[in-house]
Amino acid sequence: MYLMLLTVVVRNSKSVLLTSLFVLLFNISFSQTENDALEVKKIYNEVLLNGESYYWLEKLCKDVGPRLTGSEGYDKAVKYAVESLEGFCDTVFTQAVEVNYWQRGNREEVFAWIGKEKIKLRSTSLGNCVSTPIEGIQGEIIEVFSLDEVNELGDKVKGKIVFFNRPMDPTIINTGAGYGGAVDQRVFGAATAGKYGARAVLVRSVTTSLDTFAHTGTNMYIDTIPAIPAMAISTVDANMLSEALKKEPVKVQLFNTSKMVGKRTNHNVIAELRGKVSPDTIIVIGGHLDSWDLAQGAHDDGTGCAHMVGVMQTLHKMKIDTRYTVRCVLFANEENGLAGGTGYAQRSEKLNEKHIAAIESDGGGFSPRGFGCAGREDIFRPYFASLKSFEDVLHPFGISIDNGGGGADIGPLKPQGPLLIGLQVDNQRYFDYHHTKQDTFDKVNKRQLDLGVAAITSLVYLIDKHGL
Amino acid sequence: MYLMLLTVVVRNSKSVLLTSLFVLLFNISFSQTENDALEVKKIYNEVLLNGESYYWLEKLCKDVGPRLTGSEGYDKAVKYAVESLEGFCDTVFTQAVEVNYWQRGNREEVFAWIGKEKIKLRSTSLGNCVSTPIEGIQGEIIEVFSLDEVNELGDKVKGKIVFFNRPMDPTIINTGAGYGGAVDQRVFGAATAGKYGARAVLVRSVTTSLDTFAHTGTNMYIDTIPAIPAMAISTVDANMLSEALKKEPVKVQLFNTSKMVGKRTNHNVIAELRGKVSPDTIIVIGGHLDSWDLAQGAHDDGTGCAHMVGVMQTLHKMKIDTRYTVRCVLFANEENGLAGGTGYAQRSEKLNEKHIAAIESDGGGFSPRGFGCAGREDIFRPYFASLKSFEDVLHPFGISIDNGGGGADIGPLKPQGPLLIGLQVDNQRYFDYHHTKQDTFDKVNKRQLDLGVAAITSLVYLIDKHGL
Repeated sequence: MYLMLLTVVVRNSKSVLLTSLFVLLFNISFSQTENDALEVKKIYNEVLLNGESYYWLEKLCKDVGPRLTGSEGYDKAVKYAVESLEGFCDTVFTQAVEVNYWQRGNREEVFAWIGKEKIKLRSTSLGNCVSTPIEGIQGEIIEVFSLDEVNELGDKVKGKIVFFNRPMDPTIINTGAGYGGAVDQRVFGAATAGKYGARAVLVRSVTTSLDTFAHTGTNMYIDTIPAIPAMAISTVDANMLSEALKKEPVKVQLFNTSKMVGKRTNHNVIAELRGKVSPDTIIVIGGHLDSWDLAQGAHDDGTGCAHMVGVMQTLHKMKIDTRYTVRCVLFANEENGLAGGTGYAQRSEKLNEKHIAAIESDGGGFSPRGFGCAGREDIFRPYFASLKSFEDVLHPFGISIDNGGGGADIGPLKPQGPLLIGLQVDNQRYFDYHHTKQDTFDKVNKRQLDLGVAAITSLVYLIDKHGL
Repeated sequence: MYLMLLTVVVRNSKSVLLTSLFVLLFNISFSQTENDALEVKKIYNEVLLNGESYYWLEKLCKDVGPRLTGSEGYDKAVKYAVESLEGFCDTVFTQAVEVNYWQRGNREEVFAWIGKEKIKLRSTSLGNCVSTPIEGIQGEIIEVFSLDEVNELGDKVKGKIVFFNRPMDPTIINTGAGYGGAVDQRVFGAATAGKYGARAVLVRSVTTSLDTFAHTGTNMYIDTIPAIPAMAISTVDANMLSEALKKEPVKVQLFNTSKMVGKRTNHNVIAELRGKVSPDTIIVIGGHLDSWDLAQGAHDDGTGCAHMVGVMQTLHKMKIDTRYTVRCVLFANEENGLAGGTGYAQRSEKLNEKHIAAIESDGGGFSPRGFGCAGREDIFRPYFASLKSFEDVLHPFGISIDNGGGGADIGPLKPQGPLLIGLQVDNQRYFDYHHTKQDTFDKVNKRQLDLGVAAITSLVYLIDKHGL
């Protein structure tokens, strides 16, 4: 906006006018940044002094508990979220989406014979895992480090249990990127090995940590390929197996009684604070309400939900009248199908809604470091430039604005044109807990969670005030 | 250097030469940054793949344990540090400094009568605390929020127990700064209240956390003012006292058997990797080896020592021949007198040593965020500008270079002219553990610790290679 004004002035070439306008513009600009800084400081003060998200999260983790897609726990979470959001939002409603309900069985065990010992490995079923016959599956394991290696081995894996053992690369500083570099084994390992007649897969847990916790997560079968059991083992056990294989062949036995139950209806929870000037323009903020079933889903993604509920509560408590509608969506089924995110985008397209920005938090409730952005090619540059201009105001709070980011649930909105923004946190510990029984409330720090709420509320405030 | 060359060329005004030199300079500059980036990446890879600092720290925490100034534990730590540093340094020696040995007694209790109940508060002696008479000290408490308030009350605090209750300001994002804004009550509270005849002081624990842990820390008496007992109570108990005082006067009783034992000799541990080109120029890196006695001093400052031992080990393992001497100092007595830091600077001044840079880690072993700098006025600008030029190389690893920082132990070196550099970490959780029985090894994350080692090693490498 400033640039356009300046061009007009320069064309007129009246130097006195030019100078005055420069001074004026400088003052406007200066006081605007100052005002923004004051408002953002007020938001931070409110959240750091009176933030309640931590207690909201405590109830979600302890009273509701695990929230596996399709489970009773998920419905309980919807009820809890709706009731609490009704306390400070203008409108709260739910959106039904169809999901697949997979259920862990009461038996999931992996034994390995190493030397003459039979050792029980620390294991967990991967999502969607099919059961073994009641007598288990027994066979030799073959260690591989990539999907490609399985494709090269081809029929040599027939009748074997394929053991995917490529670690997360610890030298990648951003653990999210490290995760992305290893998770294909967990997601596509069973389908790849099943193609060549393997009987089951074991997958090294996707984590930077060397420990005894097995990490679950989605595993995708392909209709045309026989579905074979897929289980994760802890990194300590994976290393032990790998060492043992250097000496002699290793036989393992898997027992698994998990099963796909079938279709269920789950609900996205949607809550709005209606815009006072352009209510049809929407800033959507969200996290996912579902979790894996091994623990409380505290960091994945209880904290993301707590962030967004906290943003709505803060806007309400501070009586911040937004121009645009601020909409909080707690998505269903992120972990195991993305039906919530996909369904939300479909609904929005059908209703021809206008989303200016979509903000997601799904990286844990650790100290926030910034926001990472993505978007449709034609709008990205100007939108990102606008967002980047808020960095001066946010930097004193440790927040940067970066190119590259977004999130799984807001991803399907991309064709509709909002700027896609992901909260970036210090994620060095995230994969210590991710998808394990370790992901519990005690791992969350109140102050770090509050800082996330304050950062997102501030960003919503700035986007709403200045547009993109 | 580039600017000087360019000036010469411009004066000659030969445009072909100018162009060629520009190209040449650009290439040199480009490849230099590229080379630096490659070397720094190698350092990070080495540390993240093979770093041993975490295990070094584990032994310091678990086998050596608490390392209170003057105690046997401190001497045990010196022995452990010397022996391990001898494994990969050219020279290891110790420097004797004189310290005061204060000893916690076997009784330290605070009781409060609230309503009709006698409640035991969660308390701890502050450092240097004098004992109470055997029958304790009993009296009414008077709540204050600053040293100034005590000075204004003057004789009104006579015979009372002064309760300092100003919280750490949670709205200050940098918790180190928040700490700085509250800690005067703990350091000078007893001396201030003692001046007017108060019988003892209770100090609200200096932390952002609302919990039941009492935080110790140094308390400084002044020779001319009667020393009165000084104890900290947990923030939960401080709030309870404050609430109770709104209804009626509150009486408390203190028992304390701690005492100043007297002078002792402690040692700084000093280890060198001798420079190959200018061995008389020194880059000194350090943390403090002493701790409080309530726990293992894991984050304060076991991690700082582990960082620096890790840097030395990494330089050795990677066979990085430095131009300058890299010297690691594990300082004595940071917590309760600073005799180690002061003594080191005195020695260095006496020997006319030349320190180009001093790097300290004393903010915990959390994810590193950058380095904060300070220095003598005449050298600060050019030195800082040089250091700032390394930011491009370090930024991909999440490291920034900021104006403002340093450290307690390297502070006394300031007049001798090195750039004073403090490692900055994500310190949002630091004051949850600081100076409490919570500061134990399990609070440290291996990956976060390793990232600190890699960041400091990289900075040492860059300073050594390019100078300041």
